[in-house]
Amino acid sequence: MSRKLYFTAGPSALYFTAEEHLKNALREQIPSLSHRSIDFQNIYRKAAGNLRELLGIPEDYYVLFLSSGTEAWERLLQNCVTERSCHMVNGAFSQRFAETAQALQIKTEIFNAQPGSCSKPEELILPDNTEFIALTHNETSTGAMQPAGDIAAIRKAFPDTLLAVDVVSSAPYLTFPVSLVDSLFFSVQKGFGLPAGLGVWVVNERCLRKTEQKQDEGFSIGSYHSLPNLVAHSVKYQTPETPNVLDVYLLAQVTEDMNLKGIGQIKQETNYKAAVLYQAIEQCNYLQPFVRNKECQSKTTIVAELQKDMDHKRLLDYLAGKNMEVSTGYGEYKNQHIRIANFPTHSKEQIEMLADALLAYP
Amino acid sequence: MSRKLYFTAGPSALYFTAEEHLKNALREQIPSLSHRSIDFQNIYRKAAGNLRELLGIPEDYYVLFLSSGTEAWERLLQNCVTERSCHMVNGAFSQRFAETAQALQIKTEIFNAQPGSCSKPEELILPDNTEFIALTHNETSTGAMQPAGDIAAIRKAFPDTLLAVDVVSSAPYLTFPVSLVDSLFFSVQKGFGLPAGLGVWVVNERCLRKTEQKQDEGFSIGSYHSLPNLVAHSVKYQTPETPNVLDVYLLAQVTEDMNLKGIGQIKQETNYKAAVLYQAIEQCNYLQPFVRNKECQSKTTIVAELQKDMDHKRLLDYLAGKNMEVSTGYGEYKNQHIRIANFPTHSKEQIEMLADALLAYP
Repeated sequence: MSRKLYFTAGPSALYFTAEEHLKNALREQIPSLSHRSIDFQNIYRKAAGNLRELLGIPEDYYVLFLSSGTEAWERLLQNCVTERSCHMVNGAFSQRFAETAQALQIKTEIFNAQPGSCSKPEELILPDNTEFIALTHNETSTGAMQPAGDIAAIRKAFPDTLLAVDVVSSAPYLTFPVSLVDSLFFSVQKGFGLPAGLGVWVVNERCLRKTEQKQDEGFSIGSYHSLPNLVAHSVKYQTPETPNVLDVYLLAQVTEDMNLKGIGQIKQETNYKAAVLYQAIEQCNYLQPFVRNKECQSKTTIVAELQKDMDHKRLLDYLAGKNMEVSTGYGEYKNQHIRIANFPTHSKEQIEMLADALLAYP
Repeated sequence: MSRKLYFTAGPSALYFTAEEHLKNALREQIPSLSHRSIDFQNIYRKAAGNLRELLGIPEDYYVLFLSSGTEAWERLLQNCVTERSCHMVNGAFSQRFAETAQALQIKTEIFNAQPGSCSKPEELILPDNTEFIALTHNETSTGAMQPAGDIAAIRKAFPDTLLAVDVVSSAPYLTFPVSLVDSLFFSVQKGFGLPAGLGVWVVNERCLRKTEQKQDEGFSIGSYHSLPNLVAHSVKYQTPETPNVLDVYLLAQVTEDMNLKGIGQIKQETNYKAAVLYQAIEQCNYLQPFVRNKECQSKTTIVAELQKDMDHKRLLDYLAGKNMEVSTGYGEYKNQHIRIANFPTHSKEQIEMLADALLAYP
């Protein structure tokens, strides 16, 4: 059977070099390596170094490993917030970030934007004592991407508040300098095209100081994955627990491949492929972009709304017949949207094929 | 280069069928599967069903997925203890279970036994309000395994206290019926011979009720990996976050292979191989079992103490020259012990080869 082309929003297609790296990992017996060995430290060092280059992570930020982006929500809030966090919510995932805070008994200020749009920074008014702003760069459920200038505007308006950005479905396609934010995080099964089971958490010294302050005030900051414990291990290129060594290895390899191509080239290709998809969606009489404001249209997860009363399943079956899989809509939009991943692994040819298929839908 | 034989205590050698399953997973594009798909639900169902058969997990226990055994310490304590836990400590890992409780601001009663020995159940005296007993079936740092009858004795003495057992380095070699305990947990990179990055947490209804009670009393029980959230997803064979789908798939396959062999046969072989190793260690004039009491000698992680002033590195180099790797001692015993994994993947022939090498050490 020929292979399926996964344009799903995550897990998605493996990065096109990942399979070969995985076979090498087996030959090199990577899964049997001790996580306390120098070999593992070298893998961690390489993965972190490559990520610094690819994403432009400043030297004074830590690169830490968690098990998922979902875990990053919890660890950020558990470590960096004592009382109150502020959440810019415009879809299911930014909403869940806020709900994570509530589950941890943190008071939340929520700034809602309509699904398919983005909050405007100028509407963000915070109580003086707000410790933390949670922003979702790319809302995977709706395909809305916060415009490039907004993060700079928020940083400028609130220089003293911790600013944490969920880049789960945008990384490595960042549209802002990492130095503008105090923390960002992602999981590897989306833009990095790797098997799920690894999260990457980037944090600066300000986050660490806030955590230490919280701890000094007598609050618990969790156990093995507290920020100070993660940092103490990371400076030795280790992790507190036995991590997903195989995925850290694959991340080191795939980010090397991406750096060889160059982040500039990756972004250019992403922009081109996104344009091809949006153009096809505009041209199909049965589809339109769910995100109307072009400035907020995601380049990495493109969401199209189906014409009312259209048979959603028939479209998915048609694509499946061409060996292509896209994601359904998320939550309440399940039967009203399709969501298309446009990650670095998706080639121009594959995206053009998908665009042609959408245009030719009978 | 010929492959190394990993007798390390974890990560260890892959299960001998794991590599083939991993290649099949790539062919079947398992890493691209949505964790919300029926395909993933079938993988979860199969892994859980196989584990029930292999370990004798009763139907009314939940089989949940975490990212490590280390995470299981945190989740158990965060969910199932409000004020006070009791820990039977006889080495570095049982100690860390207790420290996890302290980091979560739980009061701990600690019953220490000498490293290399096990606590005696009859010495365990608990305050009336103790909610939780933490026991480590096999202390990986010292090679002490709690004797088979002890868990039944503890259960009998404290029928109303939650009893949670760390079987990280013993499973699938359990020496007690799962129904005797309220929870057990392990990670897959030891006895199951899989890449690290997945933990399995088995819990019963009593644990769930305790969690709900803690929540009703106004305490936080965490967020995405709270026990009620894990259970609510598990009954649909789903997980709250995108899990390590590849490892869940491999676990389903490897446990099928283990069930074909049968747990009885696996235990018999483990006993035989352990006897071969202990005999060799007794016969070597430069080694002796660190655990003197034969009843407490682990069958799955065999720890040998080196003759005083012996050159530790020379022994490890000698074994490395024969393409064999064992673990060093743990922590303070780093240069005084070697630790040998005797997991289901290690064949009789491999163990005999290692025993011969130890006996022939010049």
